[in-house]
Amino acid sequence: MLNLPVKLAGLGWYVPERRVTSSELETEWGLPPRWISHVTGVRERRYASTETSAGMAAAAASMALEHAAIAGASIDLIVGASAAPQQAIPCTAAFVQRELGLAGGASFCFDVNATCLSFLVALQSVAHLIAAGSCRCALIVSSEITSHSLNPAEPESAGLFGDAAAAAVIVASESGEASSIGPSLFETHSSGADLTELRGCGTLHHPNDPATDSAMNLFHMDGPAVLTIASGLFDAFIKRFFLESGRVPRDFDAVVPHQASRAALRLLSVRYGFAREQVITNLASRGNCIAASIPLALAEAMHDGRLRRGQRLLLAGTGAGLTLGAMELVL
Amino acid sequence: MLNLPVKLAGLGWYVPERRVTSSELETEWGLPPRWISHVTGVRERRYASTETSAGMAAAAASMALEHAAIAGASIDLIVGASAAPQQAIPCTAAFVQRELGLAGGASFCFDVNATCLSFLVALQSVAHLIAAGSCRCALIVSSEITSHSLNPAEPESAGLFGDAAAAAVIVASESGEASSIGPSLFETHSSGADLTELRGCGTLHHPNDPATDSAMNLFHMDGPAVLTIASGLFDAFIKRFFLESGRVPRDFDAVVPHQASRAALRLLSVRYGFAREQVITNLASRGNCIAASIPLALAEAMHDGRLRRGQRLLLAGTGAGLTLGAMELVL
Repeated sequence: MLNLPVKLAGLGWYVPERRVTSSELETEWGLPPRWISHVTGVRERRYASTETSAGMAAAAASMALEHAAIAGASIDLIVGASAAPQQAIPCTAAFVQRELGLAGGASFCFDVNATCLSFLVALQSVAHLIAAGSCRCALIVSSEITSHSLNPAEPESAGLFGDAAAAAVIVASESGEASSIGPSLFETHSSGADLTELRGCGTLHHPNDPATDSAMNLFHMDGPAVLTIASGLFDAFIKRFFLESGRVPRDFDAVVPHQASRAALRLLSVRYGFAREQVITNLASRGNCIAASIPLALAEAMHDGRLRRGQRLLLAGTGAGLTLGAMELVL
Repeated sequence: MLNLPVKLAGLGWYVPERRVTSSELETEWGLPPRWISHVTGVRERRYASTETSAGMAAAAASMALEHAAIAGASIDLIVGASAAPQQAIPCTAAFVQRELGLAGGASFCFDVNATCLSFLVALQSVAHLIAAGSCRCALIVSSEITSHSLNPAEPESAGLFGDAAAAAVIVASESGEASSIGPSLFETHSSGADLTELRGCGTLHHPNDPATDSAMNLFHMDGPAVLTIASGLFDAFIKRFFLESGRVPRDFDAVVPHQASRAALRLLSVRYGFAREQVITNLASRGNCIAASIPLALAEAMHDGRLRRGQRLLLAGTGAGLTLGAMELVL
């Protein structure tokens, strides 16, 4: 069974200054009081104002480096793991390198995109590179700014999202340390590719193409359909994960799920036998922060003591694609 | 020294039907005859018309699967490795999975972006996953459509690019096979992040932001500055690659460089002691196909017999970021 001796040596995050409550959005969007928090489970979220994706990522990275007590100059790989880049070219990781004052070629930068599961995918790749000795000290940053992409005409998804960045510094575990990345499983069911989309910003509906309209540049999610389909697929998927990994739910001290929605979080705790307090959530105060959700929940829970070194965690979630992911992490 | 026992079991490509000569573009853009081919080294290139990024990628993938004599159902990982996605959400790899008729969850999809070096970066990650047993059969696709992003006001870069897709099927080498991924090295010098840019299509200049103008959605490259800076950095970089890998140029049977420009290709053959016939090029007929350039050159040269199984290749190039990359591949 796969066990990569790597460690999340440091975790950090950044949330924008601007706090936006669901009641503000209900007023702005003409919704009944408490509609958003009832439907999505989100009471408030942050929206970037002057912050940039790379700037937020660099702030989270600085906190993660301080937490790890590792100098920025030690980093030899920076992976940007977000659904949305700062700009089309070059990759966001390169801008993060520059923001950190590490522009001189000591590290290598690229981006990974699996929408909400980008952090897990990046962590899987990085763990393999470190375990093989191809990299010594990696930084993964997930940074999401959703403001221009939300569609108030779809309040059940527009009300769900928030902006945030989170970062992790990854190194090899030292001998005697339990920290590791265990078995992981990912599945993409592209029959559901149209359920969660942002059709613009690529080659199909280029912004300069006269046929591209502004709605194509907005996020669209058929929330109820996603929940129905994803929860059905997730059932079979998580059974496969347990079967192939040889684990059972009680092997895990806690679950850090993607903060997809309140309904998605409830399913996870009830259906798979995790107690409510085992499921790390920040949905009510942060919203669904896309790729930043899992590392943000992990970082906040580790810094406030809800999670501790040596604990065996299940990181899991669903994302656009439709992609399902699960990974074992010993902290 | 790193030696991952993996094999490019099959290679394939697709180029759009529409062939566009440099003289057509010279007429259209009001340039003197032979200006584009003289400056860029590109005589003709293909431009997508009805083709989509995922459709081109799927065509290249089908050819690669046939070349490998592997059924699509065996694929358990699809990595999209292009500078430009088909759309912002979900990842292009998911659309490729669907185009291939493999939507049912048997494979996992994500995208990697290191602009022109995306294929090499994806290959490095995939090789580590396969060598560790975390993946059995991976498909990497690079598919680029540049048409809407070219700026005729910058003809030295606009005349350089072409559209194409290329794909590789990667599996573990069988015992006794020499095929492997050897040492690789990547460096990002983000001090040069502004030299090669497409500022739009992300969170900084969102297409629906009234402050975003159409020029921000066009590719911009300061060609002469990139060549000067990149060739200076590449000198030190390739020395570091040879020093750390213990290789010398004569260890390699051939070089498959990113088809950056004629000047960049000349530097590589002259300065590092490779004979002209050792340097695989397709720039004159294909243009710079961004991330698809390296796998396209590799695929075409393997299918027409210029490259053969067992040969030791150096894959190398530069890309926006500014990122430099080099990788040893035993075919």
